Amino acid sequence: MKALQDAKISIVGLGLMGGSLAGALRGQCRCVVGVDRNPQALEIGQSRALIDRGSEDLAVGVRGADIVVLSTPVRTILRLLDEIAPLLRPGCLLLDLGSTKTQIVAKMAGLPAHIEPLGGHPMCGKEKSGIESAEATLYRERTFILCPLPRTSPEALAQGQALVKAVGAQPLVLEAARQDFLAGTVSHLPYMLACALISTADATTSADPAVWEIVAGGFRDTSRVSAGNVSMWMDILLTNREEVLRAVATYQAQLAHLAGLLEKGDTTGLQKTLETIREKRLEMFP
Amino acid sequence: MKALQDAKISIVGLGLMGGSLAGALRGQCRCVVGVDRNPQALEIGQSRALIDRGSEDLAVGVRGADIVVLSTPVRTILRLLDEIAPLLRPGCLLLDLGSTKTQIVAKMAGLPAHIEPLGGHPMCGKEKSGIESAEATLYRERTFILCPLPRTSPEALAQGQALVKAVGAQPLVLEAARQDFLAGTVSHLPYMLACALISTADATTSADPAVWEIVAGGFRDTSRVSAGNVSMWMDILLTNREEVLRAVATYQAQLAHLAGLLEKGDTTGLQKTLETIREKRLEMFP
Repeated sequence: MKALQDAKISIVGLGLMGGSLAGALRGQCRCVVGVDRNPQALEIGQSRALIDRGSEDLAVGVRGADIVVLSTPVRTILRLLDEIAPLLRPGCLLLDLGSTKTQIVAKMAGLPAHIEPLGGHPMCGKEKSGIESAEATLYRERTFILCPLPRTSPEALAQGQALVKAVGAQPLVLEAARQDFLAGTVSHLPYMLACALISTADATTSADPAVWEIVAGGFRDTSRVSAGNVSMWMDILLTNREEVLRAVATYQAQLAHLAGLLEKGDTTGLQKTLETIREKRLEMFP
Repeated sequence: MKALQDAKISIVGLGLMGGSLAGALRGQCRCVVGVDRNPQALEIGQSRALIDRGSEDLAVGVRGADIVVLSTPVRTILRLLDEIAPLLRPGCLLLDLGSTKTQIVAKMAGLPAHIEPLGGHPMCGKEKSGIESAEATLYRERTFILCPLPRTSPEALAQGQALVKAVGAQPLVLEAARQDFLAGTVSHLPYMLACALISTADATTSADPAVWEIVAGGFRDTSRVSAGNVSMWMDILLTNREEVLRAVATYQAQLAHLAGLLEKGDTTGLQKTLETIREKRLEMFP
């Protein structure tokens, strides 16, 4: 496998994540090619110097690439895996940035033998999507999960880790099912909760105009992630359905327990529970 | 009633809220007296020039005051209303800063006729409590709810509004039950949700050390308010129990609805719902 500095890297999907990755890789490899069906994204990528060149055509864009990074929503990645294989040169590292990994890694297992597949999930993002919001610093000091397959060679994994370090992130090798279980609770569940909070307020208090004057930081923060990109979240929820539903069920039980203590007037039990929760939160985010 | 600049103001409870109010009022009235059982809070109040003088004794501290502000947790306010009445001069404005209003205003209705009661709830705060965290700017540009009673004179309400404006806040006159209904959903419900998220993570994913490396902004923001002061929250939940329980019940139904769409695989319904929610959130916080 080529050293990163000699590699030609093609990034398929020039949105927030792909554009930021391109910008962070530029100058650290032979060249960065952006691939996107939207010519405007390519124009922005070039005018902001995030890519060396761009192509609207997948076959042209990934031709001769040493590393191809799929940075589209998860269900598009799943579709791309079907069509991209014949376009790749032997030994090409095929990395993706999808937020859920079980389905992608399962599909990667069926790729032709000349490709080196590697699942990836960088733990960063922004509320605003699109290459307009891309920043070469987006990945810095963030965890970047890598899910190698049994067929992934040690050299390919090492190349993937070199790429992750080159953009300033910390690689964390994790099994796909374990990443989806963890992400289901710490990332996908908060999105469901934020959405349900907005719909609750909408169904009740929103009818009162005074509510806009008393909404404070707690509501704003607790509901923040509900403003995220819906297509991206649809992909995440649908490709991690079992884990998300399991997390929601556990959550409903925990919330019902808290409400039950309040309903019964069990002040000692409620206080003890809230204090334990507060301590856990402070341990998590000191 | 005296103009604010001629008034002697006593603030009972020199924590974050009381200390910040004192600092914002100082120089805009005749004098600010801090009252707290903890001599250290009084020392900090004086060394940081938030108060003109302090007293550990309630009777001494409120003697001759034109305005008394109760800035303790709600259940302490309820207790103080029993003992403070005989200590106040005729025509004294008695304002509180409690986060729930129905129970306080109901109790204020029974105060002797020589007192002018007025419920209050400033929509501001900080994660860190205590006078150490006090800032004279805390109230600036925030909404400050006022709940006058039928017995509150127009002059007393005007004086309360003058005080609110003096600290840089915007007064909003609201009926106590309406404020508690709204706060139940936009303030107290988010606290319950944040707590249940922490206890869910604690019951499931926390056993895996990798979880600490993948926790991202969504989890942090959605759980932030669970780190708040437990005594304060106990008071809020216990004195707004009905509204909080009602809000939790509505929330559980909304969350179950979202999870149901995902479970059934109703992608059209789910996408439409999430898009509506996203639009509402962007309307609320443009």
